[in-house]
Amino acid sequence: MATDRIVSADSHVNPPRDLWLRDCPAQFKDRAPRVESGPMGDFWVTDQQITGAIGLDSSAGRKPEDFKPTGLTYKEMRPGAYDPKARLEDMDVDGVDAEVLYFGGPVTQQAADPALRTYVVQRYNDWMVELSKAAPTRLVGLAHIPLLDLDEAQRELRRVAKMGLRGFHLDPFPDERGGKPLWDSAYEPFWSLVEETGLPMSFHIVGPRKANVTETFANPTPGIKETFIAIAPISICETVSTLIFTGILARHPKLRFVLVECGIGWIPYFLERMDQTFNKHRFWTKSVITEKPSTYWYRQGYATFIQDLAGVAERHRAGLRNIMWSTDYPHSDSTWPKSREALANHFKDVPADERALITGGNAAALYGLS
Amino acid sequence: MATDRIVSADSHVNPPRDLWLRDCPAQFKDRAPRVESGPMGDFWVTDQQITGAIGLDSSAGRKPEDFKPTGLTYKEMRPGAYDPKARLEDMDVDGVDAEVLYFGGPVTQQAADPALRTYVVQRYNDWMVELSKAAPTRLVGLAHIPLLDLDEAQRELRRVAKMGLRGFHLDPFPDERGGKPLWDSAYEPFWSLVEETGLPMSFHIVGPRKANVTETFANPTPGIKETFIAIAPISICETVSTLIFTGILARHPKLRFVLVECGIGWIPYFLERMDQTFNKHRFWTKSVITEKPSTYWYRQGYATFIQDLAGVAERHRAGLRNIMWSTDYPHSDSTWPKSREALANHFKDVPADERALITGGNAAALYGLS
Repeated sequence: MATDRIVSADSHVNPPRDLWLRDCPAQFKDRAPRVESGPMGDFWVTDQQITGAIGLDSSAGRKPEDFKPTGLTYKEMRPGAYDPKARLEDMDVDGVDAEVLYFGGPVTQQAADPALRTYVVQRYNDWMVELSKAAPTRLVGLAHIPLLDLDEAQRELRRVAKMGLRGFHLDPFPDERGGKPLWDSAYEPFWSLVEETGLPMSFHIVGPRKANVTETFANPTPGIKETFIAIAPISICETVSTLIFTGILARHPKLRFVLVECGIGWIPYFLERMDQTFNKHRFWTKSVITEKPSTYWYRQGYATFIQDLAGVAERHRAGLRNIMWSTDYPHSDSTWPKSREALANHFKDVPADERALITGGNAAALYGLS
Repeated sequence: MATDRIVSADSHVNPPRDLWLRDCPAQFKDRAPRVESGPMGDFWVTDQQITGAIGLDSSAGRKPEDFKPTGLTYKEMRPGAYDPKARLEDMDVDGVDAEVLYFGGPVTQQAADPALRTYVVQRYNDWMVELSKAAPTRLVGLAHIPLLDLDEAQRELRRVAKMGLRGFHLDPFPDERGGKPLWDSAYEPFWSLVEETGLPMSFHIVGPRKANVTETFANPTPGIKETFIAIAPISICETVSTLIFTGILARHPKLRFVLVECGIGWIPYFLERMDQTFNKHRFWTKSVITEKPSTYWYRQGYATFIQDLAGVAERHRAGLRNIMWSTDYPHSDSTWPKSREALANHFKDVPADERALITGGNAAALYGLS
C-alpha cells in the first residue's frame, strides 16, 4: 500500500468568496457571484438569484449529526475548500496523494445572459489553472464547460485545453436547463473537438432526471429528500446509454467520458442490460452501433465511487481499468479524514495490483499524472 | 433440477380480443376496448383512442430479427397469450410449472371516465379469476388496481381479494397519469387495506420516470428507443426508495411489494446506497424510519428478473429470499421457448437449494402455491 499513489478521482472545491469580485469588470459588478450572509447562513448570489447555499458542500470532518443543508458560513468551512496550501495539508491528513477537482459555488449555474455566463465560467476555469499550478502532481483542476451555446462551449474548451487543464465537466442533462439533449446532432462538432483535445469529459451527478433539488428539498414530506439523494447517482445511466446507443462513442472512438460520484455497483447489471437490449432490439430499431454496448464502455468509459462494496466485489464486470475511487472531499458523502479506513474496508479482499489501479493507477493514466 | 418446481414470477397475457365486447353494457358499447385491424396491423382502441399495439408484446418465439413494435395481428399471436389450454402447452414446452400473470391489452390505461375505467378493470380482473381457475396450481392471475381514485382502488382491491386473486399490480408512477405520488398520505388507508388482504402488491416496469413510450418511440434519432428500453427497469429504484424512506414499509410491516421486470443486479448497490443515505443524512432530514433501509427490503421487498447474470452472482446481497426468476412470456424480453438454457446459464455455479428458491420457491411462498 505504501508504494501506491492514492488519487481521489472526485473531490471538490468551494471557490474563494471574492473570486468573481476581484478586478470585476464594471459591467458585471452588480451581478457577479458573491457570498451574502444572513441569519440563515451564507449563500452564493448571482444576478440577484440564490445560486448555492453553504451547507452540505462543506461537510467534511463534521459528524452526520451536524450536517446542515444550509445555515453554515464561509468562516465555518475548512479552508482546504479554496486554499491550496490548506488543501494539501488536509490531503496529507487523509493519506491522499492527488485529487481531481470538481466544481463548487455557482459555476455550474447557467446564467441566461451569455456575457455573464462567460465571465463566471472563465474566471472559475482560470482559477482552476492557478490552483493546479500550486501543486501540479497533486491538484488536478477540471474546467466547467456550459452547453447552452455550443459555439461558446467549443471556444471555452479550446481555451482551457490551451491553458493545460487536464479534463472538464459537462451537465449530463443540458436539456433541463435550456440546452439541447446530448443525442442532438448539433453536438457533433463539439464531440470532435473533445476527441481532438484528448481531454476526458466528465458527467458529475446532478440529481435524478427532471427532479429539481430546490423544489424537492422544499417538500416537507419526510423521506422525499433521502429518496432524491439515494436515486441521484444511478440516474446517470441515461447518459451512458445515450452516449452508446446514439452512436456518439462509435463515431468518436477517442472520446473518453467519466461518470462522477455515481457509484459503480450498478454498472455490471447495466452493461448486461444494454447488451441484451442490443441483442434483442437492434433489428427493429435499426441500431447505428456495430459492437455490443459493453465494448464501448470498456474502451471509453470510466466511473468514480466513494463507498461501494457491491461495486468493488464486482470490479471485473464493471471493468478493472474503468473504475476509480474518490473521497468527495469536502462534500457530505466524503470519507475524509478517514479515507484510510474506507480503503482498508473496501480492498481487504482485493489483490494489490487491482487495488492499485482502482485507487490511483487508473486516474493517473487518465489524467496523465506522471 | 427435476424436483424443483419452476415458477415464472413475471409472465403476461394479451386478453381475448372480444373480452370487453361480450355482454357489453349498452352504455359502453361504443367505447369499450376492441381490436381494430388496418394496414399497420392490429391495435387496441378504447374510447376512440389507440391504447396498445400488437407488436413487441407478442414476440415470444420470434427471432429478434423479426421483432416489430407494431404491425402484427391477433392471428399471428401465440394463442397462449389468451387461451389457458394453449398457455399450459407453451409452459410445458418451456419446462415452466407455474406462471404469475401480468397485464396485457388496455387494462393499465387510465380511462378518464370512472365508469368506463371500472368496467375495463373489473372485466379484466374477472377474466384473471377465470384464467386462474383453469389451472389453479399453474396460473396465478394478478389483478390490476388503478390509483386515480383511491376509494375506487380500495373497493376493487376488496373485490379481487374476495374473489381469491393472489396479488395485484399498481402503477409505480401514478402522479404521471393524474394520480397522487405514492408518498402522499392519501394512500394510508389503501396501504392498511393491502396489509389486511395479505396480498403482495407489484410494481411492474412501465418505462423511465417522465418518459413517454409513444413520444420516445416516435423520435427518429437512432438509439433513443434503445436508451428507453435499457434504462426503464432501473428507474423503479425511485419506488423502492419512496416506499422505504417515506416510512410506508415501516408503518405497514406486513405490506409486501414486488418490483417486476426491473432486474436485480442493481439492487445490491442500491441497498448500500440507501443505507449510506440513511447513515449520513437521517439527522438533518429528520428521518421517520428507525431501521436501516436494507432491513425493510429484506423483510418486505421482492424483485423479478429474466436474464441477469450480474444479479445472480450477487444474489446474497440482493437477498436470496427476495429475488425471483421469470420468463416474461410472451413479451420481447422472453426466454421462451429456451428458458431451460437460460436457467442452465444463470445457475451453473449456484447451489441447488439457492437455485430452487430463486427459480420457484420464493414465488411459491409469496403467492401461496401449495
